[in-house]
Parts: sequence; C-alpha cells; structure tokens
Amino acid sequence: MTQALSGMRVIDATQILAGPYCTMVLGDMGADVIKVEKSPGGDDTRRMGPYTDGESHMFMMVNRNKRGISLNLKEEEDKKILYELVKTADVFIENFRPGVAAKLEIDYETLKELNPGIIYCSISGYGQTGPYRNKGGFDIMAQGLSGIMDMTGEKDGKPVKVGIAIHDIAAAQTAIQSVLTAYIHKLKSGEGQYIDVSLVDSALAWTVWEAAAYFGEGQLPKRNGTAHRAAAPYQGYATRDGFILIGAANQKLWEKFCLYVVDQPQWLEDERYSTNSLRNEHALQLEVDIENVLRTQSSAHWLVLLEENGIPSGPIYSYDQTMNDQHIQEREMILEYEHPQFGTLKTLGFPAKYSQTPAKLSKPAPRLGEHNEEIRAELGL
Amino acid sequence: MTQALSGMRVIDATQILAGPYCTMVLGDMGADVIKVEKSPGGDDTRRMGPYTDGESHMFMMVNRNKRGISLNLKEEEDKKILYELVKTADVFIENFRPGVAAKLEIDYETLKELNPGIIYCSISGYGQTGPYRNKGGFDIMAQGLSGIMDMTGEKDGKPVKVGIAIHDIAAAQTAIQSVLTAYIHKLKSGEGQYIDVSLVDSALAWTVWEAAAYFGEGQLPKRNGTAHRAAAPYQGYATRDGFILIGAANQKLWEKFCLYVVDQPQWLEDERYSTNSLRNEHALQLEVDIENVLRTQSSAHWLVLLEENGIPSGPIYSYDQTMNDQHIQEREMILEYEHPQFGTLKTLGFPAKYSQTPAKLSKPAPRLGEHNEEIRAELGL
Repeated sequence: MTQALSGMRVIDATQILAGPYCTMVLGDMGADVIKVEKSPGGDDTRRMGPYTDGESHMFMMVNRNKRGISLNLKEEEDKKILYELVKTADVFIENFRPGVAAKLEIDYETLKELNPGIIYCSISGYGQTGPYRNKGGFDIMAQGLSGIMDMTGEKDGKPVKVGIAIHDIAAAQTAIQSVLTAYIHKLKSGEGQYIDVSLVDSALAWTVWEAAAYFGEGQLPKRNGTAHRAAAPYQGYATRDGFILIGAANQKLWEKFCLYVVDQPQWLEDERYSTNSLRNEHALQLEVDIENVLRTQSSAHWLVLLEENGIPSGPIYSYDQTMNDQHIQEREMILEYEHPQFGTLKTLGFPAKYSQTPAKLSKPAPRLGEHNEEIRAELGL
Repeated sequence: MTQALSGMRVIDATQILAGPYCTMVLGDMGADVIKVEKSPGGDDTRRMGPYTDGESHMFMMVNRNKRGISLNLKEEEDKKILYELVKTADVFIENFRPGVAAKLEIDYETLKELNPGIIYCSISGYGQTGPYRNKGGFDIMAQGLSGIMDMTGEKDGKPVKVGIAIHDIAAAQTAIQSVLTAYIHKLKSGEGQYIDVSLVDSALAWTVWEAAAYFGEGQLPKRNGTAHRAAAPYQGYATRDGFILIGAANQKLWEKFCLYVVDQPQWLEDERYSTNSLRNEHALQLEVDIENVLRTQSSAHWLVLLEENGIPSGPIYSYDQTMNDQHIQEREMILEYEHPQFGTLKTLGFPAKYSQTPAKLSKPAPRLGEHNEEIRAELGL
C-alpha cells in the first residue's frame, strides 16, 4: 500500500527527543527523512544507555525510518552537501539554540535562498522570541514554567514531574502538525515558510481545562494525587498487590460499590458519605476506609468485581504489566523487527490505524554516517 | 493572510475533550469546522462549570473557531441534514463508543457511500479492536493502563495522575496528525479512508525513553518525584516561598553551586557528595541539606544567583504565575477576544508560530444551535 507522505523529503538536523520524535512520525507515514548528525559524535542520544553492542536503545527508538548522514557543518565541503540536500527537500527541521543556526549559516534566511519553497521548522526550549529565548531548553524546566509540575503530585506533597518528558513530546507533536499544515499550504500554493515551535508553548497549549477554570473563575489547578477534584470515590486505591482506579462518581454507582464490591453496607448509613459532595469533602477518610478493605485482596480480584457491577475501573499498571497486556499487544503497540546487526529488537507501535495509508516500519535507525555514500551519490557528489 | 487549511471542511460529531481539541486546532489553522451537537442538551461539557451567564468556560475554551448545529440523530429529518453535510465535507470525526455510530447509521460504511472521499476518524478510549474495545474511555483509566500514572509521583509515594488530561490530549494530537496526513493523501489521490485512534495507544506511543530502557535492559521507569534518575542535584527544591528547579548535573556546575549559590564549601569535602554518582546515591540526604539552605530565601533570590552562575534552573510556577509571566505573555500564549454576549474573554494562544499561514482566532465557540439556520440555508434546505 502507498504511504501518505511518500514523496515528502525531510532534512532533520535535530537531536535528543523533540525533533527526532517529530521526524520519526513523518518517516513512519512515508516521508524520506535524512537525519544529519554532527561529525564527530553524532546525536547526543548515542551516548545515553542502555546499549546493545555500543548502539543506544534511546537513539534507536526515536530514529527508525530515517537514513543518516554525518556532517561537520564547520567545514565548507560538508556544509555544501547540506545545501545540496536542502535544494532537494520539502522540510528542514533544527533544534539549535536560537542564533546558532545563523552562525552555522543554515538559518531560514540562508536556506530559503537555495530553496524558496522550503518549510523550515525551528524547535527550541522557549521559542525564538521573548525574554527567555536564549535559555537552554530542558523538559524539566519547561514543566516547571508551564505550571504542569505544580499541578501534578499528592495533595499534601510536593510538585512532581510528569513521568514522561511531556514538553519534549508536546513540541514534537506541535512540530508534526505544523509541518503537515505547512506542507498542505505548499502543495496548494508552492509557498514555503518558517515555523517557530517551543517546548514551553507546546504543552502550555494543552492546559485547556485548567485555563478555562482559571480565566473563568480564577480557580487554580491544585495537586490532588490521582483524585478527581469534584467527585469521590474517583481515584486510585491501594490493594494487596498494587493500585487500581475506581470511578464510582454517582449515587447509584456508589451504592453498588458499597453493597456488591466491598460489602460495606454500613457506609450507606454514614452521614459523611451520604452525597457525592460530602464524599468529596471526606475523600481522605474515605480513602483510608476503602483501602482498609481493598488491601485484603488482589487488584485482579477487585477489578473483576468492579467490572461485573459496571463500575468504571481499571488497573494502575507498572510499565512491564502494560507491555504484557493482551489488549496492548492486540493493538500492535509493540513491534518486533530484525536489525541487520543486533537481531530481533522491539519498538513501540503506531498510535493511528489508517485503512489506506498505514504507518510502517521500513528501516531501523541508522548507524552514524551509515548512508553517507548513498546520499552523496544521489546528489551526484 | 491566507490560512493553510482554508478550503477543508470538517464535520465534528465529538464532545468533551479529545475530539473537540482536535477540531479546534484544525479550525485554528483555517478549516471550516461544523460542530454537530446532540439535541437536546448539546456537548456534555456545556454542563461543566465555571459558567458565564450559563455558558461553560470549558466548552468555550475547546470549541472556538467552529460553527455549531444541533441535531437529533434519532430523527430522520435531522439525520438527513447530517448526510447532506457529510456530502460537502473532507473530514468526519466522532467519539462514540465502538458500535454506536453504526446504530445511528453514521458509521464509515454508511458515510462513504454518500462521500467516497471522506476521511473518517474515530476516537475512543481503547480503540475499535482488542478485548477492551467496549469499555468506556476515561483519561484517568488510560493513564493507569499505559503505565504513565505508575511512573509519576514521589519516590516513596503513590502513583499520581498527570495534572492535565494527558491521554485525552494525546488522542487529540494523534487525530490531528492522522487527519492532516490522510488529507495530504486525499489531495494527491482523491482517496478517503478510515482512521482508528484511541486514548490508550496515543499516549503510550509517547513513552519512548521508557520503552527504550525496558526493551533494551528490562529497566522499569520508577516514580522519582521531580528528580532525574541518574543525576543529582537535578530536581525541584523547596525555598522560603515555593519550589525551584536546579540542574547542576556535572562536577563543574556542582562546584559553582556549592561555592557561589548556596555558599556551602564544606559540601565539596563531603565524601557522600564527591561524584555525580555518589550524589545521586545520596540524593535524599542532599535534598534535605539543600532545602535547609534554600528555605532561608525566596525563589526569586535563588533563581538570580543560579542564572548569574550559569546553572540550569527555573521556577516551579503555580498556574497563575505562569499566566502572569512576561515571557508567556510575549509569546502570545494568552489571547483576549470580544464575545458578542459576554464581553472580553481570554483563551490560550497558538503553540506553532507560522510566518505565512498563522493560526488565528476567527470566531468564539457557538451557542447551542447557533448556526442551525445558516447551515441549513447553505445546504439549500
């Protein structure tokens, strides 16, 4: 089957996570992605473990479906190769600190002279404008600035970071959608353009519920563990062997829960628990009471009872449980592939399932400089 | 200026967050989005506060740049209006539980008979296939299943949920990029297609660092507060009036930190703190020691000293601090607009800054059924 982005060429001068994740997705959907790595050394991720025979799993995870060329952009000859590549491309993506691309003479002003239709996307920590533009961009600092870290954590605890690098991923997502949008514009008009994406802006734009409450009524999103801010029980609880989620947010579900799941009919007589708003007010005591019962049995035991009684619920999986879950596997979220040197490896699957233009795993991540000769030959050099 | 998606028409039969966020972004970039709401009642979000004159801020936040029509799809006359709309559209998006669209006779098989080129995107909690496909899809349950909740929280604490609805937003992001990709394919070939997006798959596909460590070496991503798993000090610390982030991850930065920021030269003689790996091993004691000093002064005081000494650092803002930050404002991440009934309102800005096809705020979210007559007239009904 054809792929939706076949015919799109992307020159990827990014490293670490945000940029490479963006270009990986473009490659998954069929774009010809050429990753330009600095020589010597390559992508900094190449020096992040774990490794197989010296090759980084972090690197391999986010650089599948790309070819690789290594260039020293401080040398004229290598810079010329980059320029020749840019002339053949639809998209150029970089994640240097603002100003560095200009020093290297690979900024938008320079590249659009070579290829007026180029779509040039810059990814940085804080963006190309504003007072913080020259600060180094780290996911953790962006989580702090956006307010997302402050709203994540236990009720009486400290702020905690989101378990994944949410701002890096958000910048990748924003870059993907803006590059695709600009490509649609280019297909219709022939015109290229410049796109400025930052880590901070990208996840901040996701705080829509929080912004609505704040702009509408000045409410601040508080840390609240796993708990819903307005309903109880609606959160995670400890069992004998882990944690599960229970969402018995209305009176009918609460009654079923007391009678048929935990067998505590006396809770229905308890005044503190008589309405959703009182249960929410006494959520901490309710948590203690519920966990005292739940700790007598396994998560699996309770999840079956909850399911049988139609109460929204689910496990809080550790990551290995996720990876071994039947549903996750049937959704093809774990792919196996053959690496020419390292044998069978695993990678994550594709979240969007297309009927006509499915994403596919065409090639493993390149070794450093693996396609140097192939790409030079294609350029006639 | 022209917008990149002008000319694209989207029929949006979704509600709550994931679907509406997706279509909001398409509308921000110029698509003609027609939101179909159930009659009576409309989008469930209309009954989620805070409100201004009975209109929900949650609803208004994620439904800007759309027109609205209210339809009762159980009535033939209204269903015919939907069918007529579909004939004029490029994209149809729904987020019913699997099977419901078929019962309503608005599934892909039905709609593609009316419009073979339609791009039909379904968003659901668990996807259209697999053993959990019929479960109700809630963001919190998806956070539990994907492992993201288990990897978020304090080191010795419980799992906590990510402060924002990360799986809802992830599904929106996946839907945006897959609809755009399918639209590129349609522009080139005329062919439409079906796309299956789930909340669970979408954020699971973001756990790339965690998957690399797990597939590569069986490492599980553990909860670790705000702390880096392999470097110290690299985390959040309490000050007199809040929390700040400090990333002094190498020896040189550590020495500067001890001498010029906290003025604790004796830490350089402390064997427990003599290398990064020892500091990491004693990170909890180091946290106590650092916080004892930091609590004597304000966050602002320490951030100036850290910045002066070139140590990566930043605030952990509460959301109101974020909204009032000069940089956030200069990046235009907060937009003001005039609502015809409610006066001046605020909304979040656009994360991608395009030079040629900027996103823009063309219209506020529709009142329920606001464009019923306009849209019927356009269809000649």
